[in-house]
Amino acid sequence: MTMQEPPAAPPAAPPAAPRDEFGAESPVDPKAADRLGPAEVAAAARCIQDRVRYTPALRCRALEAAVGAELWLKLESLQRIGAFKARGAMLAVSRLAAPARQRGIVTYSSGNHGQAVALAAREFGVQATVFMPEDAPGIKVDGVRAVGGEVKLAGTTSTHRRAAALEHCAASGGAMVSPFDHADIIVGQGTATQEFLAQVEKSGGPLDVLIVPVGGGGVIAGACLASANHPVRICSAEPATCDAMAASLEAGRRVRVAPGETLADGLKPLQVGVLNFEIARRRVQAAFRVDESEIGLALVTLAIRGKLVVEPSAAVGLAVALRGAAALAHRGIEPRRIGVMITGGNIEPALLSRLIRDYGDHV
Amino acid sequence: MTMQEPPAAPPAAPPAAPRDEFGAESPVDPKAADRLGPAEVAAAARCIQDRVRYTPALRCRALEAAVGAELWLKLESLQRIGAFKARGAMLAVSRLAAPARQRGIVTYSSGNHGQAVALAAREFGVQATVFMPEDAPGIKVDGVRAVGGEVKLAGTTSTHRRAAALEHCAASGGAMVSPFDHADIIVGQGTATQEFLAQVEKSGGPLDVLIVPVGGGGVIAGACLASANHPVRICSAEPATCDAMAASLEAGRRVRVAPGETLADGLKPLQVGVLNFEIARRRVQAAFRVDESEIGLALVTLAIRGKLVVEPSAAVGLAVALRGAAALAHRGIEPRRIGVMITGGNIEPALLSRLIRDYGDHV
Repeated sequence: MTMQEPPAAPPAAPPAAPRDEFGAESPVDPKAADRLGPAEVAAAARCIQDRVRYTPALRCRALEAAVGAELWLKLESLQRIGAFKARGAMLAVSRLAAPARQRGIVTYSSGNHGQAVALAAREFGVQATVFMPEDAPGIKVDGVRAVGGEVKLAGTTSTHRRAAALEHCAASGGAMVSPFDHADIIVGQGTATQEFLAQVEKSGGPLDVLIVPVGGGGVIAGACLASANHPVRICSAEPATCDAMAASLEAGRRVRVAPGETLADGLKPLQVGVLNFEIARRRVQAAFRVDESEIGLALVTLAIRGKLVVEPSAAVGLAVALRGAAALAHRGIEPRRIGVMITGGNIEPALLSRLIRDYGDHV
Repeated sequence: MTMQEPPAAPPAAPPAAPRDEFGAESPVDPKAADRLGPAEVAAAARCIQDRVRYTPALRCRALEAAVGAELWLKLESLQRIGAFKARGAMLAVSRLAAPARQRGIVTYSSGNHGQAVALAAREFGVQATVFMPEDAPGIKVDGVRAVGGEVKLAGTTSTHRRAAALEHCAASGGAMVSPFDHADIIVGQGTATQEFLAQVEKSGGPLDVLIVPVGGGGVIAGACLASANHPVRICSAEPATCDAMAASLEAGRRVRVAPGETLADGLKPLQVGVLNFEIARRRVQAAFRVDESEIGLALVTLAIRGKLVVEPSAAVGLAVALRGAAALAHRGIEPRRIGVMITGGNIEPALLSRLIRDYGDHV
């Protein structure tokens, strides 16, 4: 799937109101995309700058021979809570009206977002309640509790936990901070790209391509906004088994997928967000799907040769880069300088140990 | 072992000529220490700046609660060939007289030094011959060959391979680049500390303590020279089973140890270098010994919580920091800002996998 030219304008009004990933009518207006851009991302950055880290952007020379171009990594693995999610959560919580915030923050998550919201709530001196699946890994439950969040277990699917979270909101008057389909979350995540573009430009020159892993589409929508006035091409990367963004871009509309098994536990939504898709469809140059073995190999290659630990969801973007500049050329991109958004570094020790054992002889 | 005050001056002439780690009379004059300092390190930096990387110095906030102070890491794991050894080797080869260089470079090594010398030789368009043990791991032999070095296998002990290397030098007229006991090697390694002090000072403030892993003593002697005009306290870190520097500092003279088993394969010389010891004894504030379990735990803690892969030899320094600022206070140091020299990141995948499996539940 390659889009050489972004569509000239958003489409006419959709035939029906957009529906969220659970099939409910979505309250998000895709037209909000029209009023979002680099200025909104810059404003977000000013708002959260004292609460999140300005993470390093490293040139990864050890892998450049394999890639065939300069390779730059934005290390959100070194962000607070070990993932970019701290950015959007911090912005969204900071922008809640104080009375709503005082009644408590509510969210649902099986992973990093819950921890990020709990951290943000603590920074503002309020309580976060995070609805998590009954089979959530202990390390993630502990992570939310470690930053002061209250964990409530609700069913095993995202439909269950979202319903429970909405019910809790209605009863408590608390404020929901959704995981990706919200303007504050998107411009918050976009601050990572804004930093990255400036860091690479200062140290080397302009990025030609930025590869971004996609789950619900928070980071990539933010990347599109942050880079709107920059020549960088934005590419999405997904597990082949959970390709909601690629399928949607190809269809020209948001489609629902049935997520299969993947190492990339952070990239398994049924559908990308309404606003996320509307922003992405105007700007994303190419969408890539990677196999599970590419994810494992990319993760271990970066650990052994690049000396950096990342989570499988972050390795999805690197896997695209490791196909080499030639693979990008097939999509009409001839990069001299490739950037990969390393979205996080939270991986279970047992899984990391196993992947290194299985792929270590092949890096 | 704590030395609150450095000795006022070097001791009177030693009772006998210093002997190297193999018992042979050493050609190194310890008085060379008198004419080495920050200016010589700065000159080395100018000489090698286009041939080595200016590696990142990262603040590792994820571990600061455990440490009880700011924790800064100098990532020589991201240096060329994955270890600081590239610095000294590049300087030493560049300073060889051209005719000697043309006859080829010779060294002996079981690890990173051999690879560094082979890389340096290639940069100067000459051949390196590296004498390695017959039981050297394939990955290390491959590493030397990957940068164009010729590998010769000689026995299983460092005595064997050094003798073979000297014989080869005599026959070929080639130039020996020794692993640590040489002024060029020491000031070359010192460039890492000079960068580190400047980087931390610019980003945070002055380092109060710098913890340096010690094998033959190249990095720590370089650190002592680079920091001679800086208030930072220099501490050595060694495996308890291979404590040549700690034992020598306590004895007030170089002593030979019988290295035991350790994960830190880069820190197993029989004895620290003559010049290395003479420089270190004037400046090192405290010497630390760490247990094998501390090494493994530090390595895995940094991988899982700090998201960085290091080799066991580098984890030895981190293990001291992870004892916490209180452990330093017992040695008369009350640091606000602790630096650790992360000397390298070259670790066998199978070992990394095993350590994460064994220690992953304890980080």
